[in-house]
Amino acid sequence: MATENSTPVAELRGAALAARLAEVRADYDRFRARDLKLDMTRGKPAPEQVALADAMLTLPGNGDVFSESGEDARNYGNLQGFAETRALFAPLLGVPPEQVAVGENSSLGVMHDCVVWAMLKGVPGSSRPWSKEEAPAFLCPVPGYDRHFAILEEYGIRAIPVPLTGRGPDMEAVEALVADPSVKGMWCVPQYSNPSGETYAPEVVRRLAAMRTGAPDFRLFWDNAYAVHDLRDAPERVANILDACTAAGNPDRAFIFASTSKVTLAGAGLSFFAASPANTAWYLARAGKRTIGPDKLNQLRHIRFLRDEAGIRAHMVRHRALIAPKFDAVDAALRARLDGTGVAHWTAPAGGYFISLDATPGTARRVVTLAKEAGLALTPAGATWPGGQDPEDSNLRLAPTFPSLEDVRAASEGIAICILLAALERRAAEPGAQDAG
Amino acid sequence: MATENSTPVAELRGAALAARLAEVRADYDRFRARDLKLDMTRGKPAPEQVALADAMLTLPGNGDVFSESGEDARNYGNLQGFAETRALFAPLLGVPPEQVAVGENSSLGVMHDCVVWAMLKGVPGSSRPWSKEEAPAFLCPVPGYDRHFAILEEYGIRAIPVPLTGRGPDMEAVEALVADPSVKGMWCVPQYSNPSGETYAPEVVRRLAAMRTGAPDFRLFWDNAYAVHDLRDAPERVANILDACTAAGNPDRAFIFASTSKVTLAGAGLSFFAASPANTAWYLARAGKRTIGPDKLNQLRHIRFLRDEAGIRAHMVRHRALIAPKFDAVDAALRARLDGTGVAHWTAPAGGYFISLDATPGTARRVVTLAKEAGLALTPAGATWPGGQDPEDSNLRLAPTFPSLEDVRAASEGIAICILLAALERRAAEPGAQDAG
Repeated sequence: MATENSTPVAELRGAALAARLAEVRADYDRFRARDLKLDMTRGKPAPEQVALADAMLTLPGNGDVFSESGEDARNYGNLQGFAETRALFAPLLGVPPEQVAVGENSSLGVMHDCVVWAMLKGVPGSSRPWSKEEAPAFLCPVPGYDRHFAILEEYGIRAIPVPLTGRGPDMEAVEALVADPSVKGMWCVPQYSNPSGETYAPEVVRRLAAMRTGAPDFRLFWDNAYAVHDLRDAPERVANILDACTAAGNPDRAFIFASTSKVTLAGAGLSFFAASPANTAWYLARAGKRTIGPDKLNQLRHIRFLRDEAGIRAHMVRHRALIAPKFDAVDAALRARLDGTGVAHWTAPAGGYFISLDATPGTARRVVTLAKEAGLALTPAGATWPGGQDPEDSNLRLAPTFPSLEDVRAASEGIAICILLAALERRAAEPGAQDAG
Repeated sequence: MATENSTPVAELRGAALAARLAEVRADYDRFRARDLKLDMTRGKPAPEQVALADAMLTLPGNGDVFSESGEDARNYGNLQGFAETRALFAPLLGVPPEQVAVGENSSLGVMHDCVVWAMLKGVPGSSRPWSKEEAPAFLCPVPGYDRHFAILEEYGIRAIPVPLTGRGPDMEAVEALVADPSVKGMWCVPQYSNPSGETYAPEVVRRLAAMRTGAPDFRLFWDNAYAVHDLRDAPERVANILDACTAAGNPDRAFIFASTSKVTLAGAGLSFFAASPANTAWYLARAGKRTIGPDKLNQLRHIRFLRDEAGIRAHMVRHRALIAPKFDAVDAALRARLDGTGVAHWTAPAGGYFISLDATPGTARRVVTLAKEAGLALTPAGATWPGGQDPEDSNLRLAPTFPSLEDVRAASEGIAICILLAALERRAAEPGAQDAG
């Protein structure tokens, strides 16, 4: 039995295949009979993670309402954010505090706004608003983040997939594609990428900063969502994109985004925009039409709670202690069922919020359906591709942070069973697979 | 002297005019010599007003993080806002809770987003995005709110001024103008309007709801910013616009906006969108591309602090006690210097944040310059008109809430002196005014 389990599915045929299929179907039926309700869909922190910031629930406290320069956090004003808020987060963003703007609770909102402002107004260097271009397009490294792609779809911006390599996007492909002047932007999650977990290599960052673009107003939408979200002892750090752009003579190429949604409180964190002086001035001029200023009391909460960069690092170690075991549990459960079967490979990220899994091509949708029927919610197959269309129908995004460790273990076993069952079903349908071996 | 003071400036000539001018110049010089630094520019609550909500600074408190239905306010989700948040504010918005969406800290942001979404996507009933129209336009009742007008300017939307009458916009003018299909929207601050303080009469509301518009996707941008901001015993209440639109067969005509910026905390309040079911669904579909959800901890703070509609009303009475005396002080200081001179008339609003003053035509800019030179900051003349262009150069917006009562008294005396001096200067420059009487 142990031997049979590790036989590659692609080599199974005839009676051995039928036996294995029956066996795994039985495993699936047993799993389904447990009548579980498990959810591995979204990159949400667990209740234990948000509870790490419970001290913020009584902050800033009565009487503590002034910035260092004496501004009243309870009143209007300070569009860019308190100097001390910007000083606290600037090192993580890799820019001087003067080039940081603090937003509301959602970096997605900041990115969205930059897209709509680019569409309606253009960015520094634009000769006209992007919406006046023939057919503006973005490059989308895949697998990628569905909410990035949804913004493009919302505004009729073409999404051009480019493959990720494990060290960032395929730069040969990127350099060829950006020669087209209608390519205006590119989504990048450069560190612990969503969902592949990869960090762009220094050479990739250098080439992104230096490549010739057909559009003079091309922008990297640099969503450094997981800048401090390490899972392992050897953290990965992406190279400083702003420095690289400046060194390459393209100082205005990058818009940098980040948030504390997965540092302090998801939905009640701070978001950030960071960029060159010209881009920052552009951002503030646009944002000043939208709002009188950000929520500065929430800035005080963050300053009082996190204190300094060391405080942020220490807080992230507490997150890691809660979620690294969940990533390990997924890996262990998948290995136990799938090692040697050749039906899937998956990432072991050093940070971030996801495991990216490639199942047997043509089975990802089936895996999600099987899982759903067994009470296990997975991110829809295809979600990691623009338009929800994965041409291989193979990529699955696993989000292990929110469920309890026990549920992650159970869910991962179920996922492994569904992956294996879908692969066996597919193998059984292949010509010749029913022949005796 | 007392007699002379109350002589209409327009009737002064010759030596009497010269004497009066010299006298007021001396008053002005004395005022300037006091070397004050006073600011009457923005509609900001005073420190004492935001301090009324200081109990919120320690809310929601440890362990109090769940909505009535058990949602964790510390985590992602609930794009529309907690049911109890919507139930608390729905009566003030005049809509069912199902038709309310809770935003972030800025209703200006909600309005801005509705404009950009209309421009890029269109609204329910649009045959194409507004940005694809020849030359989309908004009606702008004047005097009005500069930040409303700035959004139009930002996106190249034409702003067409229409006069306010004291009971809302001139409906003859409005009905004629909206016949043009390029008129897509209209800014309205329907209660305690910024800055005139007027409340739209029931008949005006009915006509706005019922008028024939050339654009089938015309929208009233109904900024009910001062819905509960009474200053007098007899509060004014604008008629329910959504009911009026529904009754008139135009159920989707109004987008309603409001916030608690001047109820709880300016910059850390809640904003609201409210509208018909179709508009609310449209809003949520758009907002869902921009954010995963609003700051629900701030919703809990508001729910715990304000509790119910009676709590909101009681809180607003405390605001009134702080700011009504400031409005009275402005009125008294202006009367003391200007009664009988015929150089200005101004409002005595029953609510809101502003006094609107019409100085002698052609002198508003001069008044602001004189005031500035005497250490007194006023909202720029023309700010209450689209493009900052007041064709009469007469309207001034006075914002008495932020300075202390003592400063409001001093500033108002200074304003009266500047208004009178500018009027006398202008009179002195008129043909024949130097002739003996």
